[in-house]
Amino acid sequence: MTGGIGFEVTARDGAARTGQLRTAHGSVETPCFMPVGTAATVKAMTPEMVARTGAEIVLGNTYHLMLRPGAERIASLGGLHRFMNWPRPILTDSGGFQVFSLAALREIDEEGVTFRSHLDGSRHHLGPERCVEIQALLGADIAMVLDECTSYPADEATAAASMRLSLRWAERCRAAFRSAPGRGLFGIVQGGIYPALRHEAAAALGAMDFDGYALGGLAVGESSEERFEITRFTASQLPEDCPRYLMGVGKPVDLIGAVECGIDMFDCVLPTRSGRTGQAFTARGAINLRNARHAHDERPLDDACGCPTCAGYSRAYLHHLIRAKEILGAMLLTWHNLHYYQELMRALREAVAAGGLATVSAELRDGLAAGDMPPTGLGTTVR
Amino acid sequence: MTGGIGFEVTARDGAARTGQLRTAHGSVETPCFMPVGTAATVKAMTPEMVARTGAEIVLGNTYHLMLRPGAERIASLGGLHRFMNWPRPILTDSGGFQVFSLAALREIDEEGVTFRSHLDGSRHHLGPERCVEIQALLGADIAMVLDECTSYPADEATAAASMRLSLRWAERCRAAFRSAPGRGLFGIVQGGIYPALRHEAAAALGAMDFDGYALGGLAVGESSEERFEITRFTASQLPEDCPRYLMGVGKPVDLIGAVECGIDMFDCVLPTRSGRTGQAFTARGAINLRNARHAHDERPLDDACGCPTCAGYSRAYLHHLIRAKEILGAMLLTWHNLHYYQELMRALREAVAAGGLATVSAELRDGLAAGDMPPTGLGTTVR
Repeated sequence: MTGGIGFEVTARDGAARTGQLRTAHGSVETPCFMPVGTAATVKAMTPEMVARTGAEIVLGNTYHLMLRPGAERIASLGGLHRFMNWPRPILTDSGGFQVFSLAALREIDEEGVTFRSHLDGSRHHLGPERCVEIQALLGADIAMVLDECTSYPADEATAAASMRLSLRWAERCRAAFRSAPGRGLFGIVQGGIYPALRHEAAAALGAMDFDGYALGGLAVGESSEERFEITRFTASQLPEDCPRYLMGVGKPVDLIGAVECGIDMFDCVLPTRSGRTGQAFTARGAINLRNARHAHDERPLDDACGCPTCAGYSRAYLHHLIRAKEILGAMLLTWHNLHYYQELMRALREAVAAGGLATVSAELRDGLAAGDMPPTGLGTTVR
Repeated sequence: MTGGIGFEVTARDGAARTGQLRTAHGSVETPCFMPVGTAATVKAMTPEMVARTGAEIVLGNTYHLMLRPGAERIASLGGLHRFMNWPRPILTDSGGFQVFSLAALREIDEEGVTFRSHLDGSRHHLGPERCVEIQALLGADIAMVLDECTSYPADEATAAASMRLSLRWAERCRAAFRSAPGRGLFGIVQGGIYPALRHEAAAALGAMDFDGYALGGLAVGESSEERFEITRFTASQLPEDCPRYLMGVGKPVDLIGAVECGIDMFDCVLPTRSGRTGQAFTARGAINLRNARHAHDERPLDDACGCPTCAGYSRAYLHHLIRAKEILGAMLLTWHNLHYYQELMRALREAVAAGGLATVSAELRDGLAAGDMPPTGLGTTVR
């Protein structure tokens, strides 16, 4: 640990656990889902709406923010918390993943990565030291080390070389990081689908003594069986007393399975991005609101949901908003989806605390597999 | 009056007055500004946000709603109030104005107007009886008669023929309208910029005994001097004990001037549409947030404003959101703009009630003319 943030495991059930993460901007109950606030906003949501879903921490994207409006600009305006009016914890990623997925003309070498902005073609360099500096300028409660996200598929030699470059960058990030109360730095375990490489990375990073450990290079094309296997194995290799973060995952069933593997933290664009394209997540699976079958349906998205969208609006109305490309459609579906994700995490935390995760997980999976119900015609309507 | 809605003048100051409008869904203090909820949503706002601005009534567009999702669909889903989750008063327009401004292949005759939808090219007919029927299906608290919005410029003979067609349609709307407690029908005075025609229309409509009277065919290209002159004259020709509604107006200075002429109700897309394109209205005039001069500005849009946008966000942040085309930018600027419009109406109501409208109007106009202040560098920041 850098001595910055605190983490305490509060209950265990098999490999799963609940915990409390303590940062400079407050504490977070884990396992937690972090809504993605790419460009200093969780898209289509006010911070007040985000907080009402139950979210206690959001993620900011270093790549997007360094390009626009710039890390120094945000620092001069009081840091990311004040800039975006989110007074609670923020985790920032390292920017590495977006450089590899969004930027043009990437050149990677021992010093870091040089790339052109997807916004204006301007040339930028991101190395381990600058990566840590940017996240400090943003004022992140939790910063991530710069890593190379190993592509999939990759043979073992390629995955090993990539993972070891990430280890050298991690060491430089660790050296550059200035500890402060309530602020921490996480290492990132790479190694593709190879247990031996994941073991090597976990051990090496553990020796560097980070505040937490992320699993990177997953949700990039591997099967979900491969992902669960590597997740379970890698989690078992990490320090018991530190938070574990599975980056970029995922669907509701993925979260359930990963919690069972001992993961404490998640982020994913799925609930927010899907909300803008008409997809709603419910306890009975996903619903595409564009579908004409919703045009006359007076029911809420999910009878059992307590979010403002389900309290006030019918599927017929949401269908109308999505078809008419109204901003309110994106707002209401994003709100519901984030509420659903937070309630799912709450259910998993409560199950772990009660020692009943296996039963609860099975019920949750059954519901998700059951699929959406047709309207009964008996008048289940918006309350 | 059809016997449906109630209206009481509560104070006078010159030609201006305050009043209270009573409908099936609650009462409205006048002079009032009605946010435009075109497609069953005030764009980029939840109904909760709209209510927090102080708005007591919104406008729905018959043209948009008859095409998508359809008046019968909305009726089967419990009416527009329930559909859009707005339990307060709603005024619907007649659809005529949008047919003339948006639809294709319009053919107008004594029976009404035939047109093709701008959405899918489908053919539709809108006559006086159907216009009233649609607004009843929507469940409007206040419905408007079908009229032809006389184009500008129009010679007196053209304006007269158009106005008289609107009078014949108004008579048919009046006959088709079924009175119900708390629901009313407004006539619309046309006549272009010709006082004699406005007088003729006002007298003829007054004899038909509507619940209120709108001024149509303004804000279509005439100078603001012409508009104020015709507004003042027309208002003076209308029954004292009925609400007067100036359709589609306007900028803050236009509202101030029209209240002085005796107008009680307004609607305009300006605060909502401008909010989506980066323009903010303040007591010191309009601000374009796209402008680079805001990139480092820590101040709120308006030091004196009590809206959530000004309470939590800097101009620099709003500039960033608008530049990054983030939905939250549209949400926060629309919120501020509607709040500003509601506060302006409140200030005018209080001035009339206190008998000090001339002084308050002069101060408001001075502020608007003064223009935005540059940052002082002394650290006036977001609270």
